[in-house]
Amino acid sequence: MDTLSVELGPRSYPIVIGAQLLARGDEIAARIPARDVLVVTNTTIAALYSPALQSALAGRRVVEVVLPDGEVHKTLANVARILDVLVANRFGRDACVVALGGGVVGDMAGFAAACYQRGIAFVQVPTTLLAQVDSSVGGKTGVNHAAGKNLIGAFHQPTAVIADTATLDTLPDRELRAGLAEVVKYGLICDHAFFEWLERESDALLARDPAALAHAIRRSCELKAAIVARDEREQGERAWLNFGHTFGHAIEAATHYSAWLHGEAVAAGMRIAADMSRACGWLRAADVQRIERLLSRLQLPLDVRAIPAADALELMRMDKKVAAGRIRLVLLERIGAARVTADYPDEALRATLAAHFG
Amino acid sequence: MDTLSVELGPRSYPIVIGAQLLARGDEIAARIPARDVLVVTNTTIAALYSPALQSALAGRRVVEVVLPDGEVHKTLANVARILDVLVANRFGRDACVVALGGGVVGDMAGFAAACYQRGIAFVQVPTTLLAQVDSSVGGKTGVNHAAGKNLIGAFHQPTAVIADTATLDTLPDRELRAGLAEVVKYGLICDHAFFEWLERESDALLARDPAALAHAIRRSCELKAAIVARDEREQGERAWLNFGHTFGHAIEAATHYSAWLHGEAVAAGMRIAADMSRACGWLRAADVQRIERLLSRLQLPLDVRAIPAADALELMRMDKKVAAGRIRLVLLERIGAARVTADYPDEALRATLAAHFG
Repeated sequence: MDTLSVELGPRSYPIVIGAQLLARGDEIAARIPARDVLVVTNTTIAALYSPALQSALAGRRVVEVVLPDGEVHKTLANVARILDVLVANRFGRDACVVALGGGVVGDMAGFAAACYQRGIAFVQVPTTLLAQVDSSVGGKTGVNHAAGKNLIGAFHQPTAVIADTATLDTLPDRELRAGLAEVVKYGLICDHAFFEWLERESDALLARDPAALAHAIRRSCELKAAIVARDEREQGERAWLNFGHTFGHAIEAATHYSAWLHGEAVAAGMRIAADMSRACGWLRAADVQRIERLLSRLQLPLDVRAIPAADALELMRMDKKVAAGRIRLVLLERIGAARVTADYPDEALRATLAAHFG
Repeated sequence: MDTLSVELGPRSYPIVIGAQLLARGDEIAARIPARDVLVVTNTTIAALYSPALQSALAGRRVVEVVLPDGEVHKTLANVARILDVLVANRFGRDACVVALGGGVVGDMAGFAAACYQRGIAFVQVPTTLLAQVDSSVGGKTGVNHAAGKNLIGAFHQPTAVIADTATLDTLPDRELRAGLAEVVKYGLICDHAFFEWLERESDALLARDPAALAHAIRRSCELKAAIVARDEREQGERAWLNFGHTFGHAIEAATHYSAWLHGEAVAAGMRIAADMSRACGWLRAADVQRIERLLSRLQLPLDVRAIPAADALELMRMDKKVAAGRIRLVLLERIGAARVTADYPDEALRATLAAHFG
């Protein structure tokens, strides 16, 4: 078991990573000090891991909200449903919300915790690779709006993240690969050596080699924790973590959050962002190909030709990274070094979109 | 014109108090630096002050959301409506929400600003006495739930509060009196001399004497700003500001946010809290009478016998001030000194509720 820390002064919290944390239960029990606990999960995960979580919380008052599974359900209406359950059970400010599931569950449970009585505690128990390496860490919570991804939400840090790597045993291959896209992201934006390690270990990761997965998760959390600690509210370098996401969010929104998994859209978005970096004269063509090669080896979908380029541009304008009417992009100076910029040739963006989208 | 400051480090902001600030427009223009502005107001206030605000913001892109007037409309559904307008107009993170109205408008506009893209700027332009002396300052935002007041919300500080005392000219007498209840609260919880001043000036205040009103507003804002600066997130003394509110929220909820104005319910709640302070052996009976006398002179309703005591207790249990299943109360040690406690005889609370409620 590894314990990392997200250093945010009074809002610091641990990330506990290990196998069988749900089955053992002791870490869960210790990290959730509340008497009243609201577990938010989804139909898929409830069947698999809710009994273990309930056992770990024996003796508490535990209420469960089971939401439908999928990004399309990440809505304000479902957060309102969580809030209604908190109210109906008369949970007080000393209650704790536990998110048991992937990024969708974590984002909604965290947002409900942020809004209930102006903020109560919440603990992330991520059960997907994507949630374990990315979304459960850092306090971004929220829901989608028909017009764009994560447009409504709050910064609200969890009080603990407990990542049980054994839950990945039940994760479908497609979701595992989607999670690996976010792992690749860390290498691309800030750790060239980690990118090279991923190139070497891609087969082991796809084969779910426990040691390889454990390293990928730990290293991703280390990198994310360090970035969040330096820039909690995304005034600066935290925006690097959005690499591939502005293009990716447009892919997700264009397909109504149903055809692409978030990680898949990020993979395709990172490839486009890499190509845009090349079009701006930053990244070498050989490096773009190297990135494409790794994403392809991880069996991530990269073909977005079914989406019209004009639609993609329109949706990108609605993304949160717009300032003074201009889309800010996270681009790569090289593999392992990202930069946020609104200072790029419009023609390069147009050409890049045209080259990839339909 | 007076300018106070709420000292919260990087989140510090000014409170500008003066007559004709909307008509003059220069302070408004200077304190709202955004290019894109969403004005949130209600049907009553829009007719009176929207044109002046629009003039002050000439040259900006201004979009207006006009909500129905009244506490009963302070709902998550109306916040969702504000968010929809922000999305539909593609407002970015650099946009600013302006709340033009009373506490209901300010709470909803502030909560929408807190949630939109995980937090954008907002400016309070309070047009009621209650909002000018209390709700516009301090960053508490949110909405009601059928089961309780302000159960859903966020701490989100405005970037400025601009209180135009000329707007009080159009304020109905009943709302003026409701605002005076919150003014009295400051005297009771932390400023004995101010309480005595209010006793002396009650007639002048009811007669809307400009100098008296200006002093009441300035002193209230000074006291609130100081408390908020010392305890932004209500870990301690900020809870004093809830004096009368736990009883008051029960009154509002029991009457479905329609029969009592918030300030009226607070007035009746303060009288009950004073009596409870006496029942606990803290406040002298003569001081309870003195408080009742001032509230009565201000023509505030104090009779809650139409509400069953059992209902009031049930609703108080749903209030946010419950910890470990016990209702925390703000009581008075004496006029000018409040204390938060969960350590009181249950029998005293039961008897106090029975004495006042039906």
